[in-house]
Amino acid sequence: MADLTHLDASGAAHMVDVSAKPDTVREAVAEGAISMAPAVIAAIRAGDIKKGDVLGTARIAGIMAAKQTSSLIPLCHPLPISSVSVEFDYTDTGVRVETRVRTSGKTGIEMEALTAASIALLTIYDMAKAMDKGMVIGPVRLLAKSGGKSGEWVAG
Amino acid sequence: MADLTHLDASGAAHMVDVSAKPDTVREAVAEGAISMAPAVIAAIRAGDIKKGDVLGTARIAGIMAAKQTSSLIPLCHPLPISSVSVEFDYTDTGVRVETRVRTSGKTGIEMEALTAASIALLTIYDMAKAMDKGMVIGPVRLLAKSGGKSGEWVAG
Amino acid sequence: MADLTHLDASGAAHMVDVSAKPDTVREAVAEGAISMAPAVIAAIRAGDIKKGDVLGTARIAGIMAAKQTSSLIPLCHPLPISSVSVEFDYTDTGVRVETRVRTSGKTGIEMEALTAASIALLTIYDMAKAMDKGMVIGPVRLLAKSGGKSGEWVAG
Amino acid sequence: MADLTHLDASGAAHMVDVSAKPDTVREAVAEGAISMAPAVIAAIRAGDIKKGDVLGTARIAGIMAAKQTSSLIPLCHPLPISSVSVEFDYTDTGVRVETRVRTSGKTGIEMEALTAASIALLTIYDMAKAMDKGMVIGPVRLLAKSGGKSGEWVAG
Amino acid sequence: MADLTHLDASGAAHMVDVSAKPDTVREAVAEGAISMAPAVIAAIRAGDIKKGDVLGTARIAGIMAAKQTSSLIPLCHPLPISSVSVEFDYTDTGVRVETRVRTSGKTGIEMEALTAASIALLTIYDMAKAMDKGMVIGPVRLLAKSGGKSGEWVAG
Amino acid sequence: MADLTHLDASGAAHMVDVSAKPDTVREAVAEGAISMAPAVIAAIRAGDIKKGDVLGTARIAGIMAAKQTSSLIPLCHPLPISSVSVEFDYTDTGVRVETRVRTSGKTGIEMEALTAASIALLTIYDMAKAMDKGMVIGPVRLLAKSGGKSGEWVAG
Repeated sequence: MADLTHLDASGAAHMVDVSAKPDTVREAVAEGAISMAPAVIAAIRAGDIKKGDVLGTARIAGIMAAKQTSSLIPLCHPLPISSVSVEFDYTDTGVRVETRVRTSGKTGIEMEALTAASIALLTIYDMAKAMDKGMVIGPVRLLAKSGGKSGEWVAG
Repeated sequence: MADLTHLDASGAAHMVDVSAKPDTVREAVAEGAISMAPAVIAAIRAGDIKKGDVLGTARIAGIMAAKQTSSLIPLCHPLPISSVSVEFDYTDTGVRVETRVRTSGKTGIEMEALTAASIALLTIYDMAKAMDKGMVIGPVRLLAKSGGKSGEWVAG
Repeated sequence: MADLTHLDASGAAHMVDVSAKPDTVREAVAEGAISMAPAVIAAIRAGDIKKGDVLGTARIAGIMAAKQTSSLIPLCHPLPISSVSVEFDYTDTGVRVETRVRTSGKTGIEMEALTAASIALLTIYDMAKAMDKGMVIGPVRLLAKSGGKSGEWVAG
Repeated sequence: MADLTHLDASGAAHMVDVSAKPDTVREAVAEGAISMAPAVIAAIRAGDIKKGDVLGTARIAGIMAAKQTSSLIPLCHPLPISSVSVEFDYTDTGVRVETRVRTSGKTGIEMEALTAASIALLTIYDMAKAMDKGMVIGPVRLLAKSGGKSGEWVAG
Repeated sequence: MADLTHLDASGAAHMVDVSAKPDTVREAVAEGAISMAPAVIAAIRAGDIKKGDVLGTARIAGIMAAKQTSSLIPLCHPLPISSVSVEFDYTDTGVRVETRVRTSGKTGIEMEALTAASIALLTIYDMAKAMDKGMVIGPVRLLAKSGGKSGEWVAG
Repeated sequence: MADLTHLDASGAAHMVDVSAKPDTVREAVAEGAISMAPAVIAAIRAGDIKKGDVLGTARIAGIMAAKQTSSLIPLCHPLPISSVSVEFDYTDTGVRVETRVRTSGKTGIEMEALTAASIALLTIYDMAKAMDKGMVIGPVRLLAKSGGKSGEWVAG
């Protein structure tokens, strides 16, 4: 098992040097969920039938958040994101989100996928919180990544 | 149960008008967790003994993210945050975070507390992902809020 | 006719002092338009019937841009926005947007309304530019403002 | 005429994948205008003779806005801008702006040129609005683009 | 001499609670300097005679940076800035900047004045670095503050 | 000695065109200092022994600021930062910071190193200002750069 690469030899935080790594196409897929009272699911579905604004807004929030990842996560490298998709489906207990982010860059894009999922779910919380403050976000996790020296990884 | 207040009569997303509401002191408390392999907990603890950089970095990321909440969550009002604290404790399965945010403003500060918790946990993921990509974030939820017309709310 | 208040006595740019002004409720309404080929209007309408994503995305972009106004316009004061709405209607030549922004603050909120309109229209351009690069944005203008010492103003 | 590429097969907004496209030098040129009362033109010209601060400030605002384009326009790719220029000239009815942006990247830079023009014009509005709230922004449009698979495009 | 208020009882960083403090008018004045080769001073002066773009650009950069202070300094409270001015004068060894920032808020505005000065000086460095990479920034310091419970403070 | 490259032939500010330059690995090293009363040095050291939060927070602020450089400095090109380190040591009169930033890009990364140093020092000021408002920041200067057409440069 590798070390905590974001701490240097003295234990101080630093941004790891990737300048010598080649640009390769990389992809990361993440998922997350939010659970809520049945009446809230029904209200979001009803809005979705009319104009889709809760999930439509959460999708845009997730896409825009992916582009802010390196401003939010202190030791995360800025990456030229080449695509983002944010998809939702309804579950028995709420909404599930799946994000997919690609780049042609020097390091992995997992954080962008996870950040997009987290902010999309927070946006759903924000838009429905007048109905239900007890909604719970999670689990949020990486499903898969590809590209780069470490290659393929798929959640067990 | 209230309606989805962030959709107007036609179903379109809008930012709710709070201009007539008084400024009152409001507080929100949120919590979240990240679960990880025991070796990762041990490595973070070891770094913490040396310089505290994983949790120290995650704390700063959470505090700074609280201040970016209204830039990230589309229909969230900008609020003059008057305090933020981000606290961690180790659990058997990983790290738990508790955030507490206060404002003197016209609307609630729940989203800031939840956003601080989410970004703090994502930062832990980022700093430890070289060891374990299978870490899982959640549950993230509101614990309590106070202030404003709707008054006290405590998670059930 | 007043002077250029954003230049000081020596002609240098500065941010005008509003610290002694009271907080009052202020509102601004702006409008804008984008003209495009009929086939593009038809395609946006068709998407709108399905999921509303072009105008839905442009609405979110406008709302979020209103909150970034003081970061974009150099001498603009930061204001605690208390509501934003962005509405669209189809015209014979394209799409018209009307934005309405309110604050309880020390200075006017015209720039937020105009910025929301401009960014919403740019977002429509972005989403439709694969079909028609010749779309034209404008006129963008203030329709009305109220609140503050200068009081009501309505476009002639 | 192409489809609305920013909507996927289900009609949902997404950021189009450009990861397989090569980096090529791309340029976009946009223009815009703001019309105003003759006394305002005279005042801006007078300031310009002294210190140039209205147009000088608007130029900086436009350049800085070009760098924020992908944060403002939801589905716009981040691009490594390699040059921006923002030029003004006086017309009978106000001020005309022309922006020119270049990149070496995977997709076009039209939105950066249009955003720079729009924010430059909004900055002029902001600095002169104490004199004339009735100023009108537009038309803002793309004049030309070059580079990439679709090659040259010049406004008709 | 007071304690390090930004560390809590356990030594962890937090944003100090100011929610119970009243809004009062506060002002801070800071200064800074950059020293450079005589030929660079001459070139900046020459540009200043023509269009003032080096110092004009640095002024705008300083004003805009003041508005970003709470995004840059982790434990700094967001404050509604009510005015900013950034003034330059030439010295024998380079350029001196003086910044003055006001707010009506719950805590002091020193960091905004110091940040405006620092970014203005960095902008001068950026624009002149092709001529002289050996320019030196500093001293940057607070000259005076007023308002709030701690009242007047003037540099010794 | 070169000209002021950030002014065009007419004297107007512009962002210099680097689109034809190759991507090469570039590095910049900067330093800065903050001087303070001995009791403040002792308090920061004491906190550092406990949890390191003053310098740990300043380190994170510096790293995050490096990534915001092109948003803060008007004519600075956005660059894909590939590493940042921020190191501190105590001196007789306060704290010295040394920053090192690398990129694989088309233009130099000096501004990122200098901005990281400046914001790290401002963060120390912020966290210690309750004890000593008379702290002085500077000198901040470039120590060395490498890479690109102009090659090596070391401070004299």
